[in-house]
Amino acid sequence: MAFSLFQDLKLGILGGGQLGRMLIQSSFDFNIDIAIMDPDDQAPCSRIASRFKVGSLKDYTDVYEFGKGCDVITVEIENVNTEALRQLELEGKKVYPQPAVIELIQDKRIQKQFYKDHNIPTSPFILTEDRNEVMRHADFLPAVHKLGREGYDGRGVQMLRQVEDISKAFDKPGVLEKLIDFQTEISVIVARNPQGQVRTFPAVELVYHPEANLVEYLFAPAKISPEVADKAEKIAIDVITKLDMIGLLAVEMFVTKEGEVLVNEVAPRPHNSGHQTIEANHTSQYEQHLRSIMGAPLGDTAALKPSAMVNLLGEEGYEGLAKYEGMEESMAVDGAHIHLYGKSYTKPFRKMGHVTIVDEDLDRLKEKADFIKNTLKIKA
Amino acid sequence: MAFSLFQDLKLGILGGGQLGRMLIQSSFDFNIDIAIMDPDDQAPCSRIASRFKVGSLKDYTDVYEFGKGCDVITVEIENVNTEALRQLELEGKKVYPQPAVIELIQDKRIQKQFYKDHNIPTSPFILTEDRNEVMRHADFLPAVHKLGREGYDGRGVQMLRQVEDISKAFDKPGVLEKLIDFQTEISVIVARNPQGQVRTFPAVELVYHPEANLVEYLFAPAKISPEVADKAEKIAIDVITKLDMIGLLAVEMFVTKEGEVLVNEVAPRPHNSGHQTIEANHTSQYEQHLRSIMGAPLGDTAALKPSAMVNLLGEEGYEGLAKYEGMEESMAVDGAHIHLYGKSYTKPFRKMGHVTIVDEDLDRLKEKADFIKNTLKIKA
Repeated sequence: MAFSLFQDLKLGILGGGQLGRMLIQSSFDFNIDIAIMDPDDQAPCSRIASRFKVGSLKDYTDVYEFGKGCDVITVEIENVNTEALRQLELEGKKVYPQPAVIELIQDKRIQKQFYKDHNIPTSPFILTEDRNEVMRHADFLPAVHKLGREGYDGRGVQMLRQVEDISKAFDKPGVLEKLIDFQTEISVIVARNPQGQVRTFPAVELVYHPEANLVEYLFAPAKISPEVADKAEKIAIDVITKLDMIGLLAVEMFVTKEGEVLVNEVAPRPHNSGHQTIEANHTSQYEQHLRSIMGAPLGDTAALKPSAMVNLLGEEGYEGLAKYEGMEESMAVDGAHIHLYGKSYTKPFRKMGHVTIVDEDLDRLKEKADFIKNTLKIKA
Repeated sequence: MAFSLFQDLKLGILGGGQLGRMLIQSSFDFNIDIAIMDPDDQAPCSRIASRFKVGSLKDYTDVYEFGKGCDVITVEIENVNTEALRQLELEGKKVYPQPAVIELIQDKRIQKQFYKDHNIPTSPFILTEDRNEVMRHADFLPAVHKLGREGYDGRGVQMLRQVEDISKAFDKPGVLEKLIDFQTEISVIVARNPQGQVRTFPAVELVYHPEANLVEYLFAPAKISPEVADKAEKIAIDVITKLDMIGLLAVEMFVTKEGEVLVNEVAPRPHNSGHQTIEANHTSQYEQHLRSIMGAPLGDTAALKPSAMVNLLGEEGYEGLAKYEGMEESMAVDGAHIHLYGKSYTKPFRKMGHVTIVDEDLDRLKEKADFIKNTLKIKA
């Protein structure tokens, strides 16, 4: 293959949030020409993309017209118009991840059924059409009720521990997933290119914010046995291969006390559980995504050192123009790397940035992560 | 200090080449608002800067008008109009490095005299006004003749081994430096912020291209004894402190066979000898430069792993629209990170990009660096 690829292909990204922003940061190294479309003219990519178009990601015409001007089209959010992407694919555009994969992942019901149909280990579940149907399966509780479509960043998920909680269940098509008494929640990011090459990043451990249902801390590597790590990597490879997907896939999994590994859900794009790869691994998840969709050889995924990641969420009780407290103290922490997302407006739990800490001493890593979490505050 | 700093201050950079480009890449992490001025509307920063102005860096009015719209002004090239910078400084703008430091460094004669006057070890030298004066000092050969002003990227330097070579000497004010029979050529990058904090990066070893007088390879850490490394770091700190400079300073030094360390020359900005810090060190030189001039605490300079850096120079005999050969093979090298500078036009020895290789095995590092040097070619 002649490698004019990176010089001559125009890449279009649907979505201009922080993931797109970090993709752009990475893309400079390869002279890739990137266009971004996002509905928000103040999106994190708006000031840094060489071409930025305001448009609806769910609108057929907007997506189609945007894609027409590109050679390769990818997403940094799943919630996009896939009909337009299918048409673009028919017209010869490279759309990675493929529209069929995006559609499958857009609907948590179909996603869950896919695991079952393809012998991918996942928690027991029941598909529900409305709240009444959840009520009929009250004996299945404790369970997690997920909205089939449109859930994102903690929205569209409810914990149903007892019958009284069912009033919180969604009154729309959803999936009721048996609550797993897991020991650890992990993520393996895997990439696959059109040549069929597949590479996984080492498993990381996720600690979720109890209220916001967002990743609060991440530790890499995950504290799991080599056997469990191996099992998790094999599952991630199995999922991306069975999806026949090209691109980057984050596979979130539960590790039970018995060492069982169950797929929770996946995201077909760079993911919150891979931010730390920018500093801590040979290749970042962003570069890996670009490599995979541009048809390049995949990069070395090995970690250089252990790392932790803390999401910087908008402080509860504050909404308005963002003010950063504790920046100086946080910047003074050796091995800490601050990433702000260029969002001027904060609101409770909004993802405003993240901090990666690299340190070979695991205790110190935790201490530094705690310090930054307690020091760096985003208020208004 | 309230850390609104990074939110509210506008940073202006004089020069829009690859160093500015990598500064911009780094700046996104801190939501820094950057404006760039460069005479070339196709400069590497032109497509990625949120504000890009075409203007002459040597013109008083262009520099002054550009600086007026900024709060902090820095450079990615020394060859700028310092009169305008002095005026901006008088008007309360933060100009880092300070105009006085830039002026001193702009003239290799003054720079060399500064070392002598401040007891900074450097090679013996003679200031020369014209070629005739070089001839009068023929007994000082072998020596390197450097043009006082305007030398850059290998231009303005001549090796004078014997009397016959003097015809190549510059017929303008220059400095004749005794040729040092060095064992190793090293560089220490040091940063200093307005609070007076100083931090050095570990010394790296430079191998120059014999013809182009450009860095061809770099290895980090340098193969020098801990005593020599310590001496070199102390000298770098001594230089930046005696210059009373704020910002980032690359200090290039010779290590003689006797373990003597002599300052060759300095650059008051991110430097070719610090590219590898992006992947191989906790803090990159670009982030460190931003931290120092924005008044933030300096970052951790420790290396994560050994690394090598290869400059990607335009292939001899080719001039025109750049075509990259061997990209795929080079991208397949584990631990290799390619950085292209967004230059569409190549010519012999033009710096088109660089590749950093990170690997803990030093022999393998050298092998990989050689492979990439022999594989990745930029033709037209």
